[in-house]
Order: sequence, then structure tokens, then C-alpha cells
Amino acid sequence: MQQLRRDPIIGRWSIVLYDQIKSPCDYSQESVKKERRGKSCPFCMGNEDTTPPEIYVDRPAPGKPNTPGWNVRVIANKFPALRIEGDLERKGLGIYDQMNGIGAHEVIIETAHHEKDIADLSQAETEKIVLAYKHRCIDLKKDSRFEYILIFKNHGSSAGASLEHSHSQLIALPIIPKKVREAMRGAQGYFNFKERCVYCDIIRQELEEKERLICENEKFAAFVPFASCSPFEMWIIPKTHSSHFELIREEDIGYFSAILRETLWRLKKVLTDPPFNFIINTAPIQQEEELEHYHWHVEIMPKLTKSAGFEWGTGFYINPSPPEQAAKWLREVSK
Amino acid sequence: MQQLRRDPIIGRWSIVLYDQIKSPCDYSQESVKKERRGKSCPFCMGNEDTTPPEIYVDRPAPGKPNTPGWNVRVIANKFPALRIEGDLERKGLGIYDQMNGIGAHEVIIETAHHEKDIADLSQAETEKIVLAYKHRCIDLKKDSRFEYILIFKNHGSSAGASLEHSHSQLIALPIIPKKVREAMRGAQGYFNFKERCVYCDIIRQELEEKERLICENEKFAAFVPFASCSPFEMWIIPKTHSSHFELIREEDIGYFSAILRETLWRLKKVLTDPPFNFIINTAPIQQEEELEHYHWHVEIMPKLTKSAGFEWGTGFYINPSPPEQAAKWLREVSK
Repeated sequence: MQQLRRDPIIGRWSIVLYDQIKSPCDYSQESVKKERRGKSCPFCMGNEDTTPPEIYVDRPAPGKPNTPGWNVRVIANKFPALRIEGDLERKGLGIYDQMNGIGAHEVIIETAHHEKDIADLSQAETEKIVLAYKHRCIDLKKDSRFEYILIFKNHGSSAGASLEHSHSQLIALPIIPKKVREAMRGAQGYFNFKERCVYCDIIRQELEEKERLICENEKFAAFVPFASCSPFEMWIIPKTHSSHFELIREEDIGYFSAILRETLWRLKKVLTDPPFNFIINTAPIQQEEELEHYHWHVEIMPKLTKSAGFEWGTGFYINPSPPEQAAKWLREVSK
Repeated sequence: MQQLRRDPIIGRWSIVLYDQIKSPCDYSQESVKKERRGKSCPFCMGNEDTTPPEIYVDRPAPGKPNTPGWNVRVIANKFPALRIEGDLERKGLGIYDQMNGIGAHEVIIETAHHEKDIADLSQAETEKIVLAYKHRCIDLKKDSRFEYILIFKNHGSSAGASLEHSHSQLIALPIIPKKVREAMRGAQGYFNFKERCVYCDIIRQELEEKERLICENEKFAAFVPFASCSPFEMWIIPKTHSSHFELIREEDIGYFSAILRETLWRLKKVLTDPPFNFIINTAPIQQEEELEHYHWHVEIMPKLTKSAGFEWGTGFYINPSPPEQAAKWLREVSK
């Protein structure tokens, strides 16, 4: 029997196909391969002059900007979806509304090593990436034109990555996006009803039941969501209530980096380096510092199925790998 | 300068990339090719015994069910996302909700000719497909467990089609899907404010401005939406207010079939047979017969770009082909 499961925050349904269950080896997606390197890759060490100048850099030793010898580099996107200069100029055109595409669009080059991903990096290297995320958010927050900052990563060309050298992206937006509003509204609705954070309730249930849990440490938990949209979807969430990613405490960065690396490593092992997207879901930046109803978290979505007319028309998702089984596979993969 | 455009119904934003405009030849997607035919294709004439039995059939002359000699055939999906037998049995699991996956999942085999698509069919052949859609909706409407019927088509494997023989699908759902609720709520909000149907206002503006218009006939118009999610997105909409597709009058089926064929033909010519999805957006079935705020329409979404972390995290869409230019290309393609 197929099962319909409802997301407890935004009310989206997913269909779990119990009579056509797919195990990891049933997904025939291509592994993410890295071919171009060195000279032709603008993100490789030594090619700093082929990218826009760096906005942020982590170097083991002092050095001139835009020269080799860095661990993490943040640059403006050469082909930005939004541009930093100008005013919004909101206007109507008959019944339609438009505004200028103002925003920031940056690229976080996660490592100087062309062939490595977060799953292959050391704990110290991963921490430098997370620190870069935090610093860029805090800096962009000062620009009052922006209302939301999204950090995301596309891994593999079928997940939308146009360059294979490991990188993530950051977009600062002049409006709170629809998807964020939806989650905020859903979480607020739950809070109004229960006087509790829905995400805190999810964490409590997942840590108690353990059947969808992948791994945990003192400060963070990783699990497969009950109503996953994608097979092998994973969430990483702080165990203590906290609404804004960029307010992560320096002493918690280690715990977060550790679970991010571990989770991506498990995914890479179980599904042979599948393409995936991850996004950091966090509260809008111009809101008061700590929101009692919202809780930041990372969503990792492997790209294993094709979304088609049905998903588009309904907003339902079809999942042929039951979350409990996916979690078991991810949990049991051996180091 | 990039431009942000807001969808007037659900408030979703799209980013039009004016400084990286893509023309039809800049999209490198594969044309949809048809290779398997005859014996190995379950939808070809003569292979009726390899599919579930037919639920509806259009035959030029009387004949035994599930034998050759048909124009259009409707069958149950052999690998259904939902099953027709059983009860919903809604229940809670801690903070989560689930129910049984009850629903109907049917396949409309649009033609007996393996190599043809709707764009290649005659007017009379296309009308038989539309009539099959209408008949199946009217029949399924009688089942009070269902609240929504979605008709959709996946064309090409990257748009999710698993068989290449031209077909569409129908899913009857026990709940009103999130995406439909969202559009109904948006349209209701506009109606409450203006006392007019938002879709009727869109049609009026598109027919007056004509810059996004693709083609029209006495009863229907086709245009590229102002805030398209996908490059070369197209909408087909009845000029006269009407909320439910299945209530289309017999005398209007000819007009609808003509514009559907023409629009798909234009898409096929301009983008060299791209993969696409189409969906028929219609009002929930258990609502009163005619809703004054909702207006049925077809959305055709070519699959030309990859949606990635940014789209997933925000619900924004990036469109490198401005709708006005896409409409011009689609309008000017010569027969």
C-alpha cells in the first residue's frame, strides 16, 4: 500500500511507494566526476586573476589578495542572478509587478583542491568553510536593502553545478522568498496553537524514535525527514533552539562542521557520490534576533528522481525509498 | 539590469536575466527522439494485452475491448503512485500525519502511432484526446473520496516520461494539493479585493498588449506568462470565464484542441522538439459547479534549465529568455 505523509510545517504531502521500494543501487544516476583541473579551472590555485576579486579569504599565512596560498575564497559570482548596484524601483505594469534585480550573488570556493569535496575535507578545513558562511552573512546583514540570505550548494551538473571544483553560493535578496514565508507561516501557526517550536518537537520525536536518525553529536542531529520530498533527503538541525544560522556560536562551529562532513560522507558512500543540493534554511535577516517559532536547519536533497508534471501540478512528491529504510542505509554504512 | 517579476496569483518571483539572454539555439537540451516501436512498446497497436485493461476507448468502428483498431485508449497505470482500492484511514504518528495512498492513476494513450505527438496529430485526432480527458474527469468525479483531478503530460525522458509513445496521465487525489490551494487562495484574495477574476484581468491585459501573445482563436488565447518560471513557458486559457476544465462545452472542444495542437507545434519548431510537461490547472471537483474567482488553464513548461539549490531554497525561478522575446519567437515561427 502506498502511503501519504504530510510535512508538519508547510503541509506538503509526499507519497511513499511501499510496493516499488528502491534501494541505493536502484538509482542509476551518474556519479559526480571531476575532470577539468588546474589551468582551465578558475577556482584552482594560481588562477585567482581569472575570477572577480575576493571579498573574503582564509589564508594560513598573510599574503597579497587574489594570489595563491588560501584555504577558502569568497568572490562575486561572475554571472550573477542579481546585481549589487542600484535601487529596487518597485513598480506596477497593469496588473503585474516588477522591480530591479538587486541583490548579492557570491561564490564560496570551499577548497583549493580541485578533486576534493566537503566529504573528503578535514574537520579543520570544513570549519573554515562554515566560518566563511557566517562572516559573509554578518557582513551582508548590514545592507538594509536585503531581507534574506540563502546559502546553497549544487553538487554535480544534474544538480545545477556549472563548475566541478567544490563551491557553494550565497544570494542576498531584497524580499523574503515565498518558500521562506511559507515555512515561517507554518511554524508560526504551530507555535500559536501549541506554544512550542515545531522544529524542537520534530527533534524530540526523532531522537526518541531513532528510526529516521542518521547520526548526532552533542549539539546537532541529522535525520531523514518523515515526509521527505526526495529519496535520501537529510536534515541537519541544532538540538538547541536557534532561529538564525549566522548567530551560530564559535564554539558550535566545530560540532556543525563535523556533522555536515559526516552526513555528506555517508551520502557519498551509500549512493556513490550522487548529485545533490543543500540549502541552509534560516530566518529572515531583518527580523528580531531570536524567533521563538523558527529553527535554522540544513536540507540536503540528493538528485535521484526527475520531478515531472505531477509534482509541478500538485506540489506532491513521490518517494520510492521510505525514510526509515533510507536512514538505516545511511546509518549503517561503515567507515 | 536583471528584473524581478511577481506572479499576480501566488506571488512567486522570477528573475529575468536581461544581460545573459538566451535565444532558442542557446538551449542545448536533447531533442526528444523516438526509438523503440512496435513489439516492444506496450502502447502500440497489437500490444493491448500487455497493459491493464482499458477503462475508456475511442474506436472508429465497434470492436472488442483491448484489441486493435482504436484512436485513444485509457488504462490504469501499471505502476501507480496511488491505488484505487481502500479507505484513507487518516492518522497521527506523534506530531506527524499520514494516510493511505488512495487515488486513481490512469494513462491516456493519445494515438496508436508510435512516432507521433500531439503537435503532429490532426485536428480530429486531438479532439478525441480532449474528449477522453473530459470523459474520465466526469466519471471519476462521481467517486466522493476524490477532491482533485490532475491531467498532465511528460514529454521526453528528461521531463519524466518513462515510455516514449505519446501519452498523458490523470491522477485523482483524496485531498486538494498544496499548489492548487495556493492558487485558489491567491485568486480568492484578488477577487475579494477587486471583485474581478484575476485570470480574466490577465487575459484582458495580454490581448490588449499583445507582446506576450502567441496565438488565439475565437474561444482561447495562448501567451507566455509575465513572470514565467521556465523559459518559453506557455499558458492556454479560455477567453470566457470558466473554472472547471471538465465542464468544457462540446462545441468548444474544437477550439481548445486547435490551440493546444498549434501551441505544441510552435514549441516543437522553435526549440527542436524539447522535453516538456503540461498540466491542466482546474478547480477542485467537489466545489460548487462554477467558481467566480478561479479560471481553468493549461500550463506548458519546457524543460530547458535545471532547477537547483537556489530555486529549491527560495521558490524563485531564473529565466534567461524574457517572456516578450520568447513570445515573439513562438509567434513568428512559420508554418
